[in-house]
Amino acid sequence: MSTTTRETTITADPAAPTVRITREFDAPVANVFRAHVEPDLVKRWLGPRGLTMEIDRFDVVTGGSYRYTHRDDDGAYTFYGSFHEVRTDERIVQTFTFEGFPDSVTLETMTFVDLGDGRTRLEGLSLFESTDARDAMIASGMEIGVNEGYEKLDELLAG
Amino acid sequence: MSTTTRETTITADPAAPTVRITREFDAPVANVFRAHVEPDLVKRWLGPRGLTMEIDRFDVVTGGSYRYTHRDDDGAYTFYGSFHEVRTDERIVQTFTFEGFPDSVTLETMTFVDLGDGRTRLEGLSLFESTDARDAMIASGMEIGVNEGYEKLDELLAG
Repeated sequence: MSTTTRETTITADPAAPTVRITREFDAPVANVFRAHVEPDLVKRWLGPRGLTMEIDRFDVVTGGSYRYTHRDDDGAYTFYGSFHEVRTDERIVQTFTFEGFPDSVTLETMTFVDLGDGRTRLEGLSLFESTDARDAMIASGMEIGVNEGYEKLDELLAG
Repeated sequence: MSTTTRETTITADPAAPTVRITREFDAPVANVFRAHVEPDLVKRWLGPRGLTMEIDRFDVVTGGSYRYTHRDDDGAYTFYGSFHEVRTDERIVQTFTFEGFPDSVTLETMTFVDLGDGRTRLEGLSLFESTDARDAMIASGMEIGVNEGYEKLDELLAG
């Protein structure tokens, strides 16, 4: 099913409440970045397989914000946040909350690294309020959503 | 000079890259909250004494953003961020960056606690990317700005 041979590396720092996610893509940095900022592209890959994504707002600019709902037969899951800073083809810093647990907020930094030869490394850093909150997110099956989402992004970038 | 008898408590967590700031005010929670969201009030107290504050934008709503410049005879210091969530009289979650070090972003949560009898406790939590970043902020003299700002807020609330 998947067209990727890439591995996603997910690392929980023992000394700080962070998660680092690193993933390479066989596509130029401009294409990987565009797939993160254009709502019509984002909804084709973000999140695990088997869910639809409805976007209320998705304004990827410095000072912008977003809100979207993932839906499957079992229910609906809404997420929202704001964009602290957006640097084209370089970096996106945003907040992130699952609306079901609105008091738990993470700060996410995505760095887009041009590897040359039309390849890109995406480096994600998620900052949690506590190690407990970080460990709960990992235990919730975050890894599946990340891996399946990036497989869909591979397919989109190859298409 | 100061009209306050309140103490500000600033605590650096040894186990996580956070700073907690706790301060009580002799004013109802609605007044303390309003002093955080109305730009004309904010500019009268935010930051250390001896600086003027120019606001480019200050839209304290969920998904809003801000940018302002503190200025004195020595120079200008610009700060910006986005508002992740604003709950009236309860909670503000925002990002924060000094434009001179744009790669260093903190996530700040302010909780407004109604103590009854027209008194309010403000509980602030700042989350840094690393303990080094947190310690650098503390070493930069953050405490002076916080204390002088809250003394000015006391004066504003009493006025």
